Amino acid sequence: MAEYLLPIEILIEQFRKLPGVGRKTAARYALSVLDMSKENAEDFAAALLDAKKKIHRCPVCNNLTDKELCSICADDSREPVICVVEDSKALMSIERIREYRGRFHVLDSVLSPMKGIGPDKIGLDRLIARLEREGITEVIVATNPTIEGDATAMYIMRVLLPLGVKVTRPALGIPVGADIEYADEITLARALKARNPIE
Amino acid sequence: MAEYLLPIEILIEQFRKLPGVGRKTAARYALSVLDMSKENAEDFAAALLDAKKKIHRCPVCNNLTDKELCSICADDSREPVICVVEDSKALMSIERIREYRGRFHVLDSVLSPMKGIGPDKIGLDRLIARLEREGITEVIVATNPTIEGDATAMYIMRVLLPLGVKVTRPALGIPVGADIEYADEITLARALKARNPIE
Repeated sequence: MAEYLLPIEILIEQFRKLPGVGRKTAARYALSVLDMSKENAEDFAAALLDAKKKIHRCPVCNNLTDKELCSICADDSREPVICVVEDSKALMSIERIREYRGRFHVLDSVLSPMKGIGPDKIGLDRLIARLEREGITEVIVATNPTIEGDATAMYIMRVLLPLGVKVTRPALGIPVGADIEYADEITLARALKARNPIE
Repeated sequence: MAEYLLPIEILIEQFRKLPGVGRKTAARYALSVLDMSKENAEDFAAALLDAKKKIHRCPVCNNLTDKELCSICADDSREPVICVVEDSKALMSIERIREYRGRFHVLDSVLSPMKGIGPDKIGLDRLIARLEREGITEVIVATNPTIEGDATAMYIMRVLLPLGVKVTRPALGIPVGADIEYADEITLARALKARNPIE
């Protein structure tokens, strides 16, 4: 008995499909499910099926929605500006600040040659189709400031600039409230380079 | 839209019930389920229900099993020694070394005054009932060497010793292959105190 019983092994394999979950964590999750009440385990399974059944991608912006259009695309009062994000989590973070009144576009993925994801697989055609249709005046490319996110942003800018649309990126710099002593060198260098006059 | 849509929120709450999973991790898991194929999500839900339906506790040793008795209790060739463990994960780890040929007893819990778990709630009565019935010659108390595990082991020893059974604990010391420089002080102190002559 070097392995768990088959129904437990199958459940462990399912938990391993979650992002960042290895064998040990998956086993811990699976055993905790066995310690739940029958009702709790049934609620868990029902929540999985229910979310998967009710939630789909908005055909306009690719955000998650339970309606035909997502609540942002359905809102006529949104300004004709599109903020491009990597995923719905980033979209939620920006919505949470309640400052941004424009629209969004959720990429299918960032560029990733390692995973075989080239420029034709990130969902840019749908973004381009929106520019004229929605009379977009500006595209804010808010991909993550990582190697893949930066490469994706550069590519999007190269494609969009010839189309005559204004393309911007959120400012990089020292996070508010952070200690300069602990800022990494690259962030600090970019913050100094992009320094602003005190007004 | 400061929160996710309701079916996603419900799924996030379910993932938060897993050990060590906070809101951000639960949201990451929930969104990854939405990115799965319909079939994968259905397999996940089915695995949850199936494991919960088929797996229960062995009435003798409290180990997880899909039969009436677990495979260890059903094995007549096991020596009349009982190794007491905190959970099925610890049992699996000991089985994996393929050296131990005795039986097991999985506690319901360790003693934990903080969680209101006193001596009557750890499953000791079932262990005591086994001693005479199975002609047990030795009980190895293999709870974790933590504050709660040690306290539980001390309590079990105090209860079992008057019953005339031999009670032991696995040796504590420097892990094989470890660097003494990195061993913690308590482990090092116990290892020195329990030093053995070279043979």
